[in-house]
Amino acid sequence: MKNLLASPLEGIITPMVTPLLDDYHLDFEGLQKLTQHLISGGVHGIFILGTTGECTNISYALRSSLIQETCLKVKGAVPVLVGITDTSMEESISLAKIAHKSGASAVVAAPPYYFGLGDVELVDYYKKLAQALPLPLFLYNMPSHTKTMLSQKVVVELSQQANIIGLKDSSGNAVYFNSMVYAFRKQPDFSLLVGPEEMMAAAVLMGGHGGVSGGSNMFPKLYVDLYEAARSGDLPLMAQLQEMVMEISSELYALGSYGSSYLKGLKAALSILEISNGYLATPMAAFGEEKLNLIRDKMTRLQAYMNYRS
Amino acid sequence: MKNLLASPLEGIITPMVTPLLDDYHLDFEGLQKLTQHLISGGVHGIFILGTTGECTNISYALRSSLIQETCLKVKGAVPVLVGITDTSMEESISLAKIAHKSGASAVVAAPPYYFGLGDVELVDYYKKLAQALPLPLFLYNMPSHTKTMLSQKVVVELSQQANIIGLKDSSGNAVYFNSMVYAFRKQPDFSLLVGPEEMMAAAVLMGGHGGVSGGSNMFPKLYVDLYEAARSGDLPLMAQLQEMVMEISSELYALGSYGSSYLKGLKAALSILEISNGYLATPMAAFGEEKLNLIRDKMTRLQAYMNYRS
Amino acid sequence: MKNLLASPLEGIITPMVTPLLDDYHLDFEGLQKLTQHLISGGVHGIFILGTTGECTNISYALRSSLIQETCLKVKGAVPVLVGITDTSMEESISLAKIAHKSGASAVVAAPPYYFGLGDVELVDYYKKLAQALPLPLFLYNMPSHTKTMLSQKVVVELSQQANIIGLKDSSGNAVYFNSMVYAFRKQPDFSLLVGPEEMMAAAVLMGGHGGVSGGSNMFPKLYVDLYEAARSGDLPLMAQLQEMVMEISSELYALGSYGSSYLKGLKAALSILEISNGYLATPMAAFGEEKLNLIRDKMTRLQAYMNYRS
Amino acid sequence: MKNLLASPLEGIITPMVTPLLDDYHLDFEGLQKLTQHLISGGVHGIFILGTTGECTNISYALRSSLIQETCLKVKGAVPVLVGITDTSMEESISLAKIAHKSGASAVVAAPPYYFGLGDVELVDYYKKLAQALPLPLFLYNMPSHTKTMLSQKVVVELSQQANIIGLKDSSGNAVYFNSMVYAFRKQPDFSLLVGPEEMMAAAVLMGGHGGVSGGSNMFPKLYVDLYEAARSGDLPLMAQLQEMVMEISSELYALGSYGSSYLKGLKAALSILEISNGYLATPMAAFGEEKLNLIRDKMTRLQAYMNYRS
Repeated sequence: MKNLLASPLEGIITPMVTPLLDDYHLDFEGLQKLTQHLISGGVHGIFILGTTGECTNISYALRSSLIQETCLKVKGAVPVLVGITDTSMEESISLAKIAHKSGASAVVAAPPYYFGLGDVELVDYYKKLAQALPLPLFLYNMPSHTKTMLSQKVVVELSQQANIIGLKDSSGNAVYFNSMVYAFRKQPDFSLLVGPEEMMAAAVLMGGHGGVSGGSNMFPKLYVDLYEAARSGDLPLMAQLQEMVMEISSELYALGSYGSSYLKGLKAALSILEISNGYLATPMAAFGEEKLNLIRDKMTRLQAYMNYRS
Repeated sequence: MKNLLASPLEGIITPMVTPLLDDYHLDFEGLQKLTQHLISGGVHGIFILGTTGECTNISYALRSSLIQETCLKVKGAVPVLVGITDTSMEESISLAKIAHKSGASAVVAAPPYYFGLGDVELVDYYKKLAQALPLPLFLYNMPSHTKTMLSQKVVVELSQQANIIGLKDSSGNAVYFNSMVYAFRKQPDFSLLVGPEEMMAAAVLMGGHGGVSGGSNMFPKLYVDLYEAARSGDLPLMAQLQEMVMEISSELYALGSYGSSYLKGLKAALSILEISNGYLATPMAAFGEEKLNLIRDKMTRLQAYMNYRS
Repeated sequence: MKNLLASPLEGIITPMVTPLLDDYHLDFEGLQKLTQHLISGGVHGIFILGTTGECTNISYALRSSLIQETCLKVKGAVPVLVGITDTSMEESISLAKIAHKSGASAVVAAPPYYFGLGDVELVDYYKKLAQALPLPLFLYNMPSHTKTMLSQKVVVELSQQANIIGLKDSSGNAVYFNSMVYAFRKQPDFSLLVGPEEMMAAAVLMGGHGGVSGGSNMFPKLYVDLYEAARSGDLPLMAQLQEMVMEISSELYALGSYGSSYLKGLKAALSILEISNGYLATPMAAFGEEKLNLIRDKMTRLQAYMNYRS
Repeated sequence: MKNLLASPLEGIITPMVTPLLDDYHLDFEGLQKLTQHLISGGVHGIFILGTTGECTNISYALRSSLIQETCLKVKGAVPVLVGITDTSMEESISLAKIAHKSGASAVVAAPPYYFGLGDVELVDYYKKLAQALPLPLFLYNMPSHTKTMLSQKVVVELSQQANIIGLKDSSGNAVYFNSMVYAFRKQPDFSLLVGPEEMMAAAVLMGGHGGVSGGSNMFPKLYVDLYEAARSGDLPLMAQLQEMVMEISSELYALGSYGSSYLKGLKAALSILEISNGYLATPMAAFGEEKLNLIRDKMTRLQAYMNYRS
């Protein structure tokens, strides 16, 4: 199977939520709807089993099934990236093998997140992992969850490895991201993608290759349009779309009092859009009726706003 | 099978290292020697798949095999506790079922350690987990690795759950531990065990039930003697043994520059004692020859010191 | 003037609260009552301008006045230690000169707490500071407020400096404190004092020299008795007194939702004891009537309990 | 005296280094050269006694002198902002009064940085401070040094206060900064300035008002040009200038192993430019000869590059 992956990978890569019926069953119908929604929305790739995909919370059996089913449903329309972040390298490699067999294009791995590792240990880990992988690898910087910041020195050294092809940075730190753009200015094939959607347009303007924007689960076209506006330097359109992205962030992701608010808001919105089931895997839980109604109101306004624009 | 567990569990519970030949194979011979070494050293329990057991770094196949083999080798001589800490509740429950079938006495779980949870979420998580478990559960406070401190309020609330029977606290924070002793002064069956061996004797003097002391892998009798000295209020003996425990901590656990130094030193010492293989699972690595020689020298002195005493 | 300081300094050193009428005026009457209360309660020293003394929140004019007035009122009955922690070394030295002129026995300094310093920078800083001081210096480890942990290596190196005579450790980390006891086992003149009162007795049992116990502002005799019980190895008495110390900690220090709860509770209790004004310097504020009444009830019970005992 | 401050304040505000001969003496000649260098370089304001100005490390006498001398030398050519960050509100107000008398235009205050404050306490503190100030106030978000993040809620509430006129954000967090731009979209007079120069251009493109760029001490015109390019949407020029700013960041600010590397590099560069003395106040220290030579080489290349361009 030909690998669909451009070099570098550019654009909007949706960190897909995992549609679940409960802790034991995928929502297959939701998965079908969601993948079609994303593809017809124009996203440039789908990243499953990332943080937004509740990667670490679901069983290996479900992870395996999700990989296979997603690849089946996407049918090569866009590249599928698979999160293999794990504390055990064996389990990461197992997931990567399933991803490869299923037709995914690449895998993505944050550092092991129980024991903290020193820089030399991190480099060794990623080299060993990359050598054992049947697919190219994106590094994933996610210090709020892993306790480990992938330093520029570590990333640059690892980028010499043939099948380490990019970095997804979810630190939110623009100094860090722009330093990476500068460090890789002569290595334009190394893909630099930014996590938080609130800074995606700015990251693209500064030379980044795109974003892994959670909100594109709901409104893929909006994020693709914002990416294109930034990429083509259409600043007035960018400003208009950025405001909508900030409105989504401000209205939907901050309703609860825990770190899980973002995920709860996103899954609630997708259930209101009738795209997928809003269930969250244990240990997280979906919003109750009251907050769901708040989100329903906000979604009505957001959709009206978006229709008006297009 | 009768459960061997006292209520509360008291004494020295060894957080057993996992003897490995490589990332894929247990060192069965080492496991046999190590369990016998611990049992004949008089420890009051064996805790496998904790942090010292490299819990999160080894594959589920190895974890499963380790549980079965350890229970077989221990043969009910002391209770076996099994770490089931995981980010996915399904996987925790699977491990607990294997533990139960194999004859283990209890399981131990730190909070999920990728997503941070709020207090309400933590309580929900542990209640749901405890209800699904076939064995009693120890809570495990390990904030340096999980990013989550189990607050006194959370622990007290969870202690009302029938099969949540104790807390292992590895925070190193004596204010926290002593507050727990105070909070549970009228609930003497709730077992309060302390992680760091450097504070075990003090914790017992203040009313704690015992320690999960890593060094007891090497010198089980020393830690058992220190526990007994503290428990019986033999302060002169306690002071003498405490100094030896501090010498071990100071000489063996601080040779490297990373957080993994403790584990590397401990496994190196066990290989020098010819008890088990010194291999560390990826992403950690055993010390090289130079550091191993340093540890060999230190062990010679420590052993002489210990023989002299006994 | 003869320096009253024993070598090493041992016992209960009260981290005295600063009696204030408002942000601009000391409560001189309260200061008189409080110092007499402490001296007649038997404390072994008084430490002013520490964290409990709201050191950094009050103006330099007030700090200077407090140093002079306290020394006048204490009249050499016990040694007075003066906190000179500052981000500017010049201001630290100025305070130390006032302390010296006023008859204080020693000064205490935590690391500069705006810029974080590396270990080499820390050693340079403390050496330079110590050389410029007219009084002996205690190091003050207070990582929750300064962001800087004074490593064992740094403390050991600084202890070679003639006028650096001890360490006050407020980290709460018993592994750290016990490691210091071990590191200084052959340097018995270097005074090792522990901050949190909840772990004072244990620290003394393990070889520490005493505690800087905030609660001794209210009940000096209780903390002195607990210290003596630990020091003399009277474990049954120690257990009884430790429970009272834990009750104080549990009942009085945790009523608010911020880090300032400890100070608010302590100052409220002192106002209920009619020892000093309960005013807290900006940016903190005293508890309102509701919480004050809660504390009044608790104090009534605590006092009854204490009278019953003695 | 007419206040020079535009509403909102926009452009490049140089966080001026403090030229020092030693810990006790300002380098007046350096101060004269540096202020002229900045004014002729076109900066839109000068911010003294910020983090780059070693605010907390120098004595109050020096701070006072620096305020007076800087205002005298700037002579109203650009607005002068004065950092009054302190743990004691009295000392902050004293500095503000000196600033006002000397003709400064505004003051800047980060939260008190020894005790951590809760949100309610923070709001109270800033309201009380603002009411006592003779000059308008900028909030200063600097969590790496103060341990406190000024939440969006706190900033929005404080912005209702008449003389709180803006925010300087040095968190480096682009999600936070862009959320502020969104939150203040209907309050365009509230000035939003970004600290780290590496993200200044992006912040301006996203709707921010400017940057407090340390590098403008050395190359004021470069940062002004970059600001203008971003502001006018000249993306090709912006990209070219951004690369130079990243080169400065990458080459000059990362030579040492501590957090102080940025300041050491910057002061070394200014001494090589013969603008001011490179002395750093205790507890920091200037680079030694070896690193100074490295910086000399880098500066030669940077200057050549810059001349070539202009």
